[in-house]
Amino acid sequence: MKNFSTIPLAALALLLPGAAFAPASAQGKPADSVSVLIVYHSVQGHTAALGKSVAEGVGKVPGAVAISRNAAEVKCDELFKADAVIVGSPVYWGNMSGVVKTFFDRWSTDCQVLPPAFAMKDKVGAAFVTGGEVSSGKEVTLLTILAAMLGNRMIVVSDGQALGATATTGEGKSPLSAQELNEGRQLGERVARVTQALKRGRPPAPKS
Amino acid sequence: MKNFSTIPLAALALLLPGAAFAPASAQGKPADSVSVLIVYHSVQGHTAALGKSVAEGVGKVPGAVAISRNAAEVKCDELFKADAVIVGSPVYWGNMSGVVKTFFDRWSTDCQVLPPAFAMKDKVGAAFVTGGEVSSGKEVTLLTILAAMLGNRMIVVSDGQALGATATTGEGKSPLSAQELNEGRQLGERVARVTQALKRGRPPAPKS
Amino acid sequence: MKNFSTIPLAALALLLPGAAFAPASAQGKPADSVSVLIVYHSVQGHTAALGKSVAEGVGKVPGAVAISRNAAEVKCDELFKADAVIVGSPVYWGNMSGVVKTFFDRWSTDCQVLPPAFAMKDKVGAAFVTGGEVSSGKEVTLLTILAAMLGNRMIVVSDGQALGATATTGEGKSPLSAQELNEGRQLGERVARVTQALKRGRPPAPKS
Amino acid sequence: MKNFSTIPLAALALLLPGAAFAPASAQGKPADSVSVLIVYHSVQGHTAALGKSVAEGVGKVPGAVAISRNAAEVKCDELFKADAVIVGSPVYWGNMSGVVKTFFDRWSTDCQVLPPAFAMKDKVGAAFVTGGEVSSGKEVTLLTILAAMLGNRMIVVSDGQALGATATTGEGKSPLSAQELNEGRQLGERVARVTQALKRGRPPAPKS
Repeated sequence: MKNFSTIPLAALALLLPGAAFAPASAQGKPADSVSVLIVYHSVQGHTAALGKSVAEGVGKVPGAVAISRNAAEVKCDELFKADAVIVGSPVYWGNMSGVVKTFFDRWSTDCQVLPPAFAMKDKVGAAFVTGGEVSSGKEVTLLTILAAMLGNRMIVVSDGQALGATATTGEGKSPLSAQELNEGRQLGERVARVTQALKRGRPPAPKS
Repeated sequence: MKNFSTIPLAALALLLPGAAFAPASAQGKPADSVSVLIVYHSVQGHTAALGKSVAEGVGKVPGAVAISRNAAEVKCDELFKADAVIVGSPVYWGNMSGVVKTFFDRWSTDCQVLPPAFAMKDKVGAAFVTGGEVSSGKEVTLLTILAAMLGNRMIVVSDGQALGATATTGEGKSPLSAQELNEGRQLGERVARVTQALKRGRPPAPKS
Repeated sequence: MKNFSTIPLAALALLLPGAAFAPASAQGKPADSVSVLIVYHSVQGHTAALGKSVAEGVGKVPGAVAISRNAAEVKCDELFKADAVIVGSPVYWGNMSGVVKTFFDRWSTDCQVLPPAFAMKDKVGAAFVTGGEVSSGKEVTLLTILAAMLGNRMIVVSDGQALGATATTGEGKSPLSAQELNEGRQLGERVARVTQALKRGRPPAPKS
Repeated sequence: MKNFSTIPLAALALLLPGAAFAPASAQGKPADSVSVLIVYHSVQGHTAALGKSVAEGVGKVPGAVAISRNAAEVKCDELFKADAVIVGSPVYWGNMSGVVKTFFDRWSTDCQVLPPAFAMKDKVGAAFVTGGEVSSGKEVTLLTILAAMLGNRMIVVSDGQALGATATTGEGKSPLSAQELNEGRQLGERVARVTQALKRGRPPAPKS
């Protein structure tokens, strides 16, 4: 499995004009410091490559930091600290891989993010996938990742394709196309911007 | 078809303690004035009744106003003005009704909310459904309503059940149960609070 | 909307060697006379073109006849007479078009194919779709067409891609690719063969 | 995990009048000997209990045998020998459990049921699920089990609810209701009858 490292804070990145959530004057405020956890499973490196582009997109947003983890290794504490979680999976038989599904199952068994408390509530969620065929499970995989997040009462967004970032990775097709990688960056950037807006706009916790 | 009227601004409602997005001190700010459009299709009155409870939930949030419209009659201008849109449908053959699907199709043909501009982008979306059997399409209907919203680059949330508010309305079962109506209220309230947080946190549009 | 005509009985077609349901010696038996109704909605002609390839696939099977109808015009009697129904739709906002959804709704309102009788029970069903983007709703559309059929207790198959035949029809891409059309033919042929096997194997109705 | 044993051949069971595939005169023919593999994952016993009712339904059909296996233990050879496979899962975060998903992943890695050969092609498939809430993932779980089967080019049916047999198993609710168990039996019986019809109607393999 290929690895990709955490994208550092792109503190000096120029703002994209016209982006819906582009902060006009808010840099430096604590609310802009958001942490986006990217969790993925990748055997051949395709999903890792798409995840890397998602992380690059997060890194384009001043104040946002992407942290990338393998689905089999991510710890509960990392979930809890994140302001947003983006999950990536290869398509196995029209659904996320067993490794990614088991990652979600551990949210209950290991991390106890259970109702009615819903420890992951109001974090932002999104998904990306890679699959060997055009229409053999990428959407279902995206949708079921988002469904797992909605069940946790997370706030869900997409970008790239309708339900998230995707790449078609059939025999002999390597590396990912420029458009696919660009859609991954769009997803990462959008998640970071929506997460910042929510963090800024959320009322302070009541003092005890 | 039963009707239900717009829920007025519940300006004096008490805040629920502990709610994730309960505004601690933000009342009166313009950002707290959010408009939630509830669009539904209802033949026997069940979906209208659940929509009424969703509107009541919106009304519990100071500054939030619910506007309810029939899916066949809602105008493009009403979509554009809304900060959030919650769509309700009966389950017909495991999916939203043709009336509700045609409502979404009009987003393209009549309202021109097309890519890459995505006129509905960053509005909040959610769904509620009623169906005659326990597991014969309510979830698929919720999920496809949310998928339509994600394709429009809306920001999607749920509450009540995992994917939104639901009611099971088989033969002889009427009216909706107290729990079902309560889940409708939960959904409406959550949509209003997330919409306020996003509106508060969104950076101001650049001055020209 | 483009039109395509009914594919006549390809009585002399050679059998494909190795096909799972290729009839070894059964030609001429009444059970091999199966009627496959292809129902589609097409505005730009893409879905009609894919439907034409599906009909060609049906026509490759001796004894099988494809009948193609516009979703807005198909009559209940045509549904009832068919041994199999294959439904095709363009993707509109991540789901079948309102026209196709309304076609399914008419199964209840006009054709009265209701539980517990389930007039469409045990007919074979399948789906094909066209969409402008790689992963923006084709699978969800296939899956919801199949879900509507399963709710009617039909027997569902796919071919081509995992959930049915598909074509990606973005700007400037025309006509459909040879592979897409071939997958359409695969779907039609498979539906015809499975329908024949079921018809042959079904016990005769009890004599009164 | 509770266990349930294989339901023996109910050789003397009376035929249900009016059942769509009730064999009128075909008993004793080799084609009527069908093997239905029931694969499930169950922690609290709910899914096992529903699986037991599915097996009972299979056992009502003369000639049909149900074999029940734990998802973590089923062997490739058992998959290959089966004429039909019915998969049951609890709902974990709106999808099948990681154990069941990993079972499907082993179809590729261990059992090599890969395209284009598709070793599971033309076997009959169906699904059953249990979940703690009314509308929090049972349908999505059913649908993704069926999607995995369709990707393998299996022939898919449902019964009970629209997409398969289900039980709602919230806090304090035990055991399963009579209706839920009955829907499980309906599913098992229908799978057995459709499998027999297909086996009877399938042309003999060519002699070498």
